[in-house]
Amino acid sequence: MNAPAHVRLVDVSPRDGLQNEKRPVSTEVRIGLVRRLQDAGLRHIEAASFVSPRWVPQMADGAAVMQGVRRRPGVRFAALVPNLRGLDTALDAPRAAWPDDIVVFGSASESFSRKNINCSIAESIERFAPVVAAARAQGLRVRAAMSCAVGCPFEGEVAPEAVGRLARMLRDIGAQEVAVADTIGVGTPDRVRRALDAALAHYDTEDVSGHFHDTQGRALANTVASLDMGIRQFDTSVAGLGGCPYAPGATGNVATEAVAALLHDRGFTTGIDLARLMEAGQYIRNALREEVAPA
Amino acid sequence: MNAPAHVRLVDVSPRDGLQNEKRPVSTEVRIGLVRRLQDAGLRHIEAASFVSPRWVPQMADGAAVMQGVRRRPGVRFAALVPNLRGLDTALDAPRAAWPDDIVVFGSASESFSRKNINCSIAESIERFAPVVAAARAQGLRVRAAMSCAVGCPFEGEVAPEAVGRLARMLRDIGAQEVAVADTIGVGTPDRVRRALDAALAHYDTEDVSGHFHDTQGRALANTVASLDMGIRQFDTSVAGLGGCPYAPGATGNVATEAVAALLHDRGFTTGIDLARLMEAGQYIRNALREEVAPA
Repeated sequence: MNAPAHVRLVDVSPRDGLQNEKRPVSTEVRIGLVRRLQDAGLRHIEAASFVSPRWVPQMADGAAVMQGVRRRPGVRFAALVPNLRGLDTALDAPRAAWPDDIVVFGSASESFSRKNINCSIAESIERFAPVVAAARAQGLRVRAAMSCAVGCPFEGEVAPEAVGRLARMLRDIGAQEVAVADTIGVGTPDRVRRALDAALAHYDTEDVSGHFHDTQGRALANTVASLDMGIRQFDTSVAGLGGCPYAPGATGNVATEAVAALLHDRGFTTGIDLARLMEAGQYIRNALREEVAPA
Repeated sequence: MNAPAHVRLVDVSPRDGLQNEKRPVSTEVRIGLVRRLQDAGLRHIEAASFVSPRWVPQMADGAAVMQGVRRRPGVRFAALVPNLRGLDTALDAPRAAWPDDIVVFGSASESFSRKNINCSIAESIERFAPVVAAARAQGLRVRAAMSCAVGCPFEGEVAPEAVGRLARMLRDIGAQEVAVADTIGVGTPDRVRRALDAALAHYDTEDVSGHFHDTQGRALANTVASLDMGIRQFDTSVAGLGGCPYAPGATGNVATEAVAALLHDRGFTTGIDLARLMEAGQYIRNALREEVAPA
């Protein structure tokens, strides 16, 4: 008998999830969420963002979160770092509070790139290149999140060729892994397979992850399609954190709970304690309700 | 060793799910969905509605669906039957095409009752009483779906006392089981427990089911809370079918796939083949896309 295969879940709720909820939560709550995710067995957590507070004020506390979290051994923390200024801020902290991984964020759709990060795809790669180089020079690992890899709210269907082109550019500037994201949740398994195939032309299987949104209830089927291709890494968000699935943009993350249960059902190990994970989900949902919508 | 406990999932997608999607699908597709749910191992399916086509035109084909489905042995079909005219229509068919169960639909919130079914709670019970009696006289089983058992889009929090009062009225008119629904997905496990407790004062545990909406990512945690209370029946919807979770009303059903995976993870049996269930989800999502939004 082979040992059961392990699947790595990257919980993106403290960053991607909360950034796309309507209002900010306190630094304490963000730290409390990260702690509970660790306690539930998550070993990869997208914890913070070093985006300019002018653009994303609810994420201004990246440094405070990274410094406030008591890390468990073996847990990797990722932070969104879009530019050199963000990297400077991240690395201003004591080494123990540095992220292990940084995340850069590109789009397979030109229109989405312009609307979301205000530049063309080629310009975004030019901007990221020195960030990736500087991060790697400091020993950090670089993940690239590729949005609109299947469909775009402005352009409709996105061709696998666009995914392949962006994957090649990301690899060429030194991003070590890529998350292929169905940002608006329109992917059928067939289309998701084609997008992943395009990324796999430039990345090893273990360096490609699936990031599925459940806007149309397709995320679990797309997870299964990815597993069948050998993909063993997925970005998910506890309690499906990530705002309204109908707004254009990066929303509607599939719930970590659902993906973990699916994986266990299929005989994969994740290291996750589902009951404790649900407690983490309850914690942040309650906090959002208290802090955001006193009723 | 005890045999693993069995949990009964009632897939409500062909009726509750599709009724709350924006546009109708053809009778053929509805039948195709029911067939695939049977093939995936579902043994309880809410298949049709006998509501006046004046109010719900997308459900006008209840009789055609019930007659078009080739039933597998051991599968129970439920149909929404709000009044005697609906029951007449349902029973006009050959006996083999009758529903096994009828569903009546009450609300624990006065405001929701008035907006949704255009009468007070007491009036709704008066209307349902002869329907329930007539259905039972024909040997049908009667389920009651209780909406807004935790929160209401118009009134906010709904008191457990309101749930208890309605459960007693439903029992008194002869409804044999009750589905306690968190229609707008605002329930924490604590509040869900209180709502279920109020229903359990009037119904046996095996006759109470949980019907949770995943609007705020709480459905799986609420399922676990219910399991801990001994509840062994849940209403779910393949692919999370049921429309926009932000509209007031009965939308945002938790996905059958996610609940089945959760149950399997916790050692419960459901009889469901998750891979085939996902195929059913793909089928209906593709059909909705093709029939509804040619792009």
